[in-house]
Amino acid sequence: MSEKLTGKNYIGNLLVATGSTTFKTFNPLLNTENSTLFTEATSLEIDHAVQLANSSLEQFKNTSNKNRATFLIAIAEEIEELGQELIHLYCAETGLTSQRAEGERARTLLQLRNFSQHVLEGKWMGASIDTRQKDRQPIAKPDLRKINVPLGPVVVFGASNFPLAYSTAGGDTASAFAAGCPVIVKSHPMHAGTSEMVASAILKAAEKTGMPNGVFSNINSKGIEVGLQLVAHPQIKAVGFTGSIQAGRALFKLASERPDPIPFFGEMGSVNPVVLLPNELKNNGTNWANTYADSVTLGAGQFCTNPGLILGIKSESLDDFVNHLAKKVQETTPLCMLHPAIHKNFNNHRKIVCQQKGVSVVARFNDDIQENFGRQTIATVSGTDFLDNNTTQQEVFGPFSIVVQCKDEHELSAIISNLDGQLTGTIIGDSEDLNSYSSIINQLKNRVGRLIFNGVSTGVEVCLSMLHGGPYPASTDSRFTAVGVDAIKRWIRPFSYQNCPDSLLPDGLKNTNTLKITRRINGVDTIKDL
Amino acid sequence: MSEKLTGKNYIGNLLVATGSTTFKTFNPLLNTENSTLFTEATSLEIDHAVQLANSSLEQFKNTSNKNRATFLIAIAEEIEELGQELIHLYCAETGLTSQRAEGERARTLLQLRNFSQHVLEGKWMGASIDTRQKDRQPIAKPDLRKINVPLGPVVVFGASNFPLAYSTAGGDTASAFAAGCPVIVKSHPMHAGTSEMVASAILKAAEKTGMPNGVFSNINSKGIEVGLQLVAHPQIKAVGFTGSIQAGRALFKLASERPDPIPFFGEMGSVNPVVLLPNELKNNGTNWANTYADSVTLGAGQFCTNPGLILGIKSESLDDFVNHLAKKVQETTPLCMLHPAIHKNFNNHRKIVCQQKGVSVVARFNDDIQENFGRQTIATVSGTDFLDNNTTQQEVFGPFSIVVQCKDEHELSAIISNLDGQLTGTIIGDSEDLNSYSSIINQLKNRVGRLIFNGVSTGVEVCLSMLHGGPYPASTDSRFTAVGVDAIKRWIRPFSYQNCPDSLLPDGLKNTNTLKITRRINGVDTIKDL
Repeated sequence: MSEKLTGKNYIGNLLVATGSTTFKTFNPLLNTENSTLFTEATSLEIDHAVQLANSSLEQFKNTSNKNRATFLIAIAEEIEELGQELIHLYCAETGLTSQRAEGERARTLLQLRNFSQHVLEGKWMGASIDTRQKDRQPIAKPDLRKINVPLGPVVVFGASNFPLAYSTAGGDTASAFAAGCPVIVKSHPMHAGTSEMVASAILKAAEKTGMPNGVFSNINSKGIEVGLQLVAHPQIKAVGFTGSIQAGRALFKLASERPDPIPFFGEMGSVNPVVLLPNELKNNGTNWANTYADSVTLGAGQFCTNPGLILGIKSESLDDFVNHLAKKVQETTPLCMLHPAIHKNFNNHRKIVCQQKGVSVVARFNDDIQENFGRQTIATVSGTDFLDNNTTQQEVFGPFSIVVQCKDEHELSAIISNLDGQLTGTIIGDSEDLNSYSSIINQLKNRVGRLIFNGVSTGVEVCLSMLHGGPYPASTDSRFTAVGVDAIKRWIRPFSYQNCPDSLLPDGLKNTNTLKITRRINGVDTIKDL
Repeated sequence: MSEKLTGKNYIGNLLVATGSTTFKTFNPLLNTENSTLFTEATSLEIDHAVQLANSSLEQFKNTSNKNRATFLIAIAEEIEELGQELIHLYCAETGLTSQRAEGERARTLLQLRNFSQHVLEGKWMGASIDTRQKDRQPIAKPDLRKINVPLGPVVVFGASNFPLAYSTAGGDTASAFAAGCPVIVKSHPMHAGTSEMVASAILKAAEKTGMPNGVFSNINSKGIEVGLQLVAHPQIKAVGFTGSIQAGRALFKLASERPDPIPFFGEMGSVNPVVLLPNELKNNGTNWANTYADSVTLGAGQFCTNPGLILGIKSESLDDFVNHLAKKVQETTPLCMLHPAIHKNFNNHRKIVCQQKGVSVVARFNDDIQENFGRQTIATVSGTDFLDNNTTQQEVFGPFSIVVQCKDEHELSAIISNLDGQLTGTIIGDSEDLNSYSSIINQLKNRVGRLIFNGVSTGVEVCLSMLHGGPYPASTDSRFTAVGVDAIKRWIRPFSYQNCPDSLLPDGLKNTNTLKITRRINGVDTIKDL
């Protein structure tokens, strides 16, 4: 572990630890605890962090787009500045490889820079102006102008499986900062050290770019109480969460039951169904088996887009696919999982599913495997048994996939219609398949946020056209995305000014378009002054 | 009442009434029941309406923008076709004047036509394309395309105070149709006849323009059970509601507690604070008192933007304002309220507020008033008594306003910070006032959805730059508006296609831009083909 780590909470820019609940992170590769002792934030510290965030709001939300863009770039630079120390710590707290750590860091920096550009471009502000019409009948039309403003302090929950890209300075934090919302991160207890280190980079960047104290805090937690207190706090105005359905739903409930309910965006479970259509399966089944063996085992299956459910119609080709997939998966070197608790959950959940009626395990997993490593598993089940038994339909977080052998298209259709909401759905088929199975494809569309053709769901491209979300429980609100610049929409609300003097309008709405943003003036998009 | 009325439910395009719970609407002006007997929908009928809506979804969501635009125009035409019969019925069920009925009808038609244009323009689709980069390192970038799609069947609750513009074919219905969502209206029991008549116009338009049966249903209800069943129905995917905080919150809770929570947009209570700043009050107090006497009593105060709370700093000018306002309000001819129940609630609630500690009634209301007419009332209270007593802060639905006499700016500030979320806030001040009280203005911004300068909050302009919504409880989600074309955003979700063959893409995302909509292709807005 890094010598710089203190194990304390950042309450604004101060390291504080007055509490008595402590914990350590764990190195699953070495199967041993890391050395730093982290102290969970006390109720008083949490309240202080929120008060600071709230007191920073007025200044932070009124920073120019340019200054917030500079802040985001500075965060990226400070994270780069952490160098190999961050990579080592990341690996020590996750058991993941340094290559993965570097890839995820690159993604995190890209996101920060994307949001920096997006803030500057200003389209996110949705600025519109409808000018006064004095002589309109029966009454004059007032001058109305609308622009998006930040909601207020946002709580971000770190995700176990993405210590960088979906945690402390990840997409939720970057998009909330971009909008002008102060952020309080509840770090994930499995990588509290990585979070502290990234937090130090954020706070350096905030100081260098003149952002107010309180714009960011990083809070340690061992159990669930810290998160509950944060979500219930009256001054918190929105929540970003990535994690399990159980935890996400409990927090969503809390957010909805507040005296003033607040937006809660939870990205939760998904089995990411893959539909193998007959022609393509017959002609290219082996290739797809190879591709899917890689996708199922990638990162020990610890991705929210892991293909946990493969659907096909019973045939010799499907049998061949299953056998080849099983063989390939068996040959793949097992990988260390994130934490003994995740490994244990994986084993338990996998076993439960494999014990269900009609479920057969086809990839024999090696029992002589290193501690905390994931025994990658492929199972099969008939369409009837799958439909009848909800347990077979649940996400098993880890290197696991169940292949459902449907007796016909009708059963395949029934299964798809019956699916919970999903982040992704994938269609494997040639052009003839795609024509013949258009109703299957349409049904799948209604259950997912992203539809992939002849590829894999793992690998979530960071770009505007990515939708990372979907019908419940893939997310708690399918109208928003957690990835791509549109993720900023979760943290803003439109605000109207009526007959406001020019001097009191925000820059985005003044007659002179000093920000040079595109605005809709009386129904026409323009960058001209009024 | 119209001879054409049946009192039955439209379950899709069929008039059905198998239930036994019946009710009549009421003419508050004549203080007598109207003649048509309405039958509440049965549980089976409700389920049938939802099943029909769901079965129409696939066809309706795939109609072209052009066809949906034509449908919306046809609805407007069919409503116009109803002519004076609709106006008479409206008046008979509300006690409102025919002038008001005609004004609201004009607004309703404008909304339908606005959404028709908006659908055609296609900007609401948010189409974006990020093309494949085969040679990108370390891995190829896939082709990703994103577009907004309808959520599914939407339930719309009719609003007591807007039988046309916020009810059957009002903004919620028009925006949901524009998005491609089938709609089930739960008509307001106070104007079930108006709803049936408007529903007949919608269904004629649907038939004429070839929309599938089930795209619209109109359901009668006497009590709350019908609404509860609709919101809880698994095939309902979103809800639009305008009404009281109590009812809105109960339905929001139900929507959030479903196995799959659904978006619920509730536009609920608001007292629409008005801040009178000293200079302007001193120089123009009498004019503003005249203006506010009109605003408070407009439509018997039955507007969600009625100015129910006027805040000023204790002074001779404020006393003069109050006296003049009271005098003017007293001189204003009382108006008939919507229903005896609303009239009774108004009287009870007004009395409760007026009995609170420190509250004085300054406009003597005439007790010798016609049945169901609203006794317009102005009360005053000190800042301390107002702050101490939540009862004085609640909305009184009707021609009522309470003037808070704050002892100083500090107390005014404390009151504003302590306000619940509001649809609107209004600042009355000259340029000197606006400079001196900038922190008051900033505080008010944080509590409202729309900020008005030197005007009144009544009169909600229908245009893009209008925000009708605001922090809870003004609405259940401040990120959306109920008025203006952006209201469509409540009913759509983004959807991504990855590596999808051109022939399977929706028109908005194909290489050739046949819809001629603006699309963002690799970061640049364009109407060009790919």
